[in-house]
Amino acid sequence: MKRSPLAPESFPELPPVPGVRLAVTRAGYKGWDRADLTFAALDEGTTVAGVTTKSRCPSPEVDWCRTALPLGRARALVVNAGNSNAFTGNRGRAAVEAITARVAKALGCQPSDVFVASTGVIGVPLPIDKAEAGIDSVLCSERATWEEAAATIMTTDTFPKAAARSAVIGDRTVNIVGIIKGSGMIAPDMATMLGFIFTDAAVDAAFLQQMLGAANRQSYSCITVDGDTSTSDTVLAFATGKARNAPLTSVDDPGADAFQAALTDLCIDLAQQVVRDGEGASKFITVDVTGAESDASAHRIAMSIANSPLVKTAMAGEDANWGRVVMAVGKAGEPAERDLLSIRFGMTEVARHGLAVEGYDEAPVAAHLKGSEIEIGVDIGLRGGRATVWTCDLTHGYISINADYRS
Amino acid sequence: MKRSPLAPESFPELPPVPGVRLAVTRAGYKGWDRADLTFAALDEGTTVAGVTTKSRCPSPEVDWCRTALPLGRARALVVNAGNSNAFTGNRGRAAVEAITARVAKALGCQPSDVFVASTGVIGVPLPIDKAEAGIDSVLCSERATWEEAAATIMTTDTFPKAAARSAVIGDRTVNIVGIIKGSGMIAPDMATMLGFIFTDAAVDAAFLQQMLGAANRQSYSCITVDGDTSTSDTVLAFATGKARNAPLTSVDDPGADAFQAALTDLCIDLAQQVVRDGEGASKFITVDVTGAESDASAHRIAMSIANSPLVKTAMAGEDANWGRVVMAVGKAGEPAERDLLSIRFGMTEVARHGLAVEGYDEAPVAAHLKGSEIEIGVDIGLRGGRATVWTCDLTHGYISINADYRS
Repeated sequence: MKRSPLAPESFPELPPVPGVRLAVTRAGYKGWDRADLTFAALDEGTTVAGVTTKSRCPSPEVDWCRTALPLGRARALVVNAGNSNAFTGNRGRAAVEAITARVAKALGCQPSDVFVASTGVIGVPLPIDKAEAGIDSVLCSERATWEEAAATIMTTDTFPKAAARSAVIGDRTVNIVGIIKGSGMIAPDMATMLGFIFTDAAVDAAFLQQMLGAANRQSYSCITVDGDTSTSDTVLAFATGKARNAPLTSVDDPGADAFQAALTDLCIDLAQQVVRDGEGASKFITVDVTGAESDASAHRIAMSIANSPLVKTAMAGEDANWGRVVMAVGKAGEPAERDLLSIRFGMTEVARHGLAVEGYDEAPVAAHLKGSEIEIGVDIGLRGGRATVWTCDLTHGYISINADYRS
Repeated sequence: MKRSPLAPESFPELPPVPGVRLAVTRAGYKGWDRADLTFAALDEGTTVAGVTTKSRCPSPEVDWCRTALPLGRARALVVNAGNSNAFTGNRGRAAVEAITARVAKALGCQPSDVFVASTGVIGVPLPIDKAEAGIDSVLCSERATWEEAAATIMTTDTFPKAAARSAVIGDRTVNIVGIIKGSGMIAPDMATMLGFIFTDAAVDAAFLQQMLGAANRQSYSCITVDGDTSTSDTVLAFATGKARNAPLTSVDDPGADAFQAALTDLCIDLAQQVVRDGEGASKFITVDVTGAESDASAHRIAMSIANSPLVKTAMAGEDANWGRVVMAVGKAGEPAERDLLSIRFGMTEVARHGLAVEGYDEAPVAAHLKGSEIEIGVDIGLRGGRATVWTCDLTHGYISINADYRS
């Protein structure tokens, strides 16, 4: 698969995170010649938080993580690529149990300290023999780099995705590194979004959960490729505590604000990289809604615009079709007054107070839409609610990837 | 535009509806060589009911109809094609007022007896001079046929759409004829769904509204092309009373059940024709959900499946990808148990109780998916809630129509 035209130029420089040891191996979940099992060993004392798919039909891996997360402890992470193990009944559950038991035995920890995520074909139970052999192999593999890990969790992604931030807590500088995969949902691979964040900060598990939840609302919850939702979406954050800062336990702790800001910024970076690898994407689109009844209302309007096939095809066609934006505002079902609505593409307002701006300068709009980074601004004109979400355009490439193909 | 491959072979035979006189003319709303203004004169005593878009940003025509509908009386209908008059502020409202005033003066009725609907480009006020000249012309035009009227309300439709049903009320047989247009939402034409139903039955306006609402819930509310919603969608039903049946006023009246059944069946036929003209459609898809928590829950799950780009592209690719159906069930947010779910394509069950049916016969599934009429069945396995909705596949044709184009 050709690298997305929206991909960053190169893989970022990433610092090590003390307390995390990465390794990868080839379990052979598919008939491919690449590593497909990623392993992270985490030092004792590591705390964990996570957010998972809202799907009502989650994979057994998601069920497992949801059960283990409240305990707040982690010693290892296993990520399988090529088989999502979703919709596989008891055999899928058995595979998760076999993986966690085997890792727990090797590390001398509880199975609930072992987190698992899988991505790939659904409806086929993860082969337990391959998973077990893969784990045995990865436990004695050499240390892998961030880039190797980011590449090994990929399925149909066209580039490995990672980012890092740092924050100062008291007299310590802590690092946060994240890797992520996902590019919409490609069959048969259900290109699930899986994200893994590692920090050497000492953070209480419950507070880490609170901060990850807040970051999620401004990042992963604000992106869409096709509006479809995987049964396996998972983001986990691990804090090893090796930076030896005074552990963060509440928003009132010194450094908590800085850590939250760094974490949120990291998550936005990672989330945007997923959009930049959207299936068939040729343009990265920022939808900015202001003046809504509330922030939640603004978010729903922004997602209605970002998910509209007509808006997304108009952007693919570089067409300043603000009528489709009005349509998407109208169908969101949120408070909106036709005669108060204003719409801009880039910096140029094309409709104001419910009317086309007569004789607006089309040149900057055309130039903006020709670019690969597009901004659609909508002011609802009611109150102060605002939201920003990110999406990509809808092109022939999306159809080719998803229709010109048999599973 | 090439006629949709899903179109019926020919335009149906339709009976006259006493009390309705049709005419068409060329108002010239666009630079095209075709009639674009449709007029129906309705005899005194005609009752009316209507359903309109749920968009929060409706056109002034929709506002007008909403205000006039509670009065329950109609003497005329004007339909403009080529300009939707949506998002045009005071000038759009003035155009609607000018049209209704002119018709009312000519017919000697109230402006509120005149119903208006417009479809086409948005953001450009309907030119009042063209509308007025068109009305003057259409008032002295010869009688038009149903087919001419059905063709004149079209925008980007590839075939005219109509249907008829009859019902027995007491010793009278009444006819119901409907015409409809819409094929998804094509820019810049916003291929709004506009439907107009005419019957010679005598029906009390409030009861007609109740019956149209019931029919709507089983027809127009059960179709989707791309999930996008026009600012102008309108369905109006007119009852002239010329059949001289004992007027229907409640469900207890003899013949009320028969009339409701005929009206609902007619609306389903018309709604399905809109899907058959869906932009780029190559397959007509029936999504049948059973076993849900309630009928409303089944409807939401069915619409989630019918609107999923991944399901629709899989159908375009003739791919028995039931994983995408599971995904769409999961993202609907309705009660569903992974391990109770069963899925079929055509008559062949491919997943049962949350697991792939091992060794199911792929031949009939492949044959079914190669056809142009596809059925996806999903049993949720919880309770007795059920729903059926209709959609089309998502193809390169949709992208070509909506992206390979500038407004």
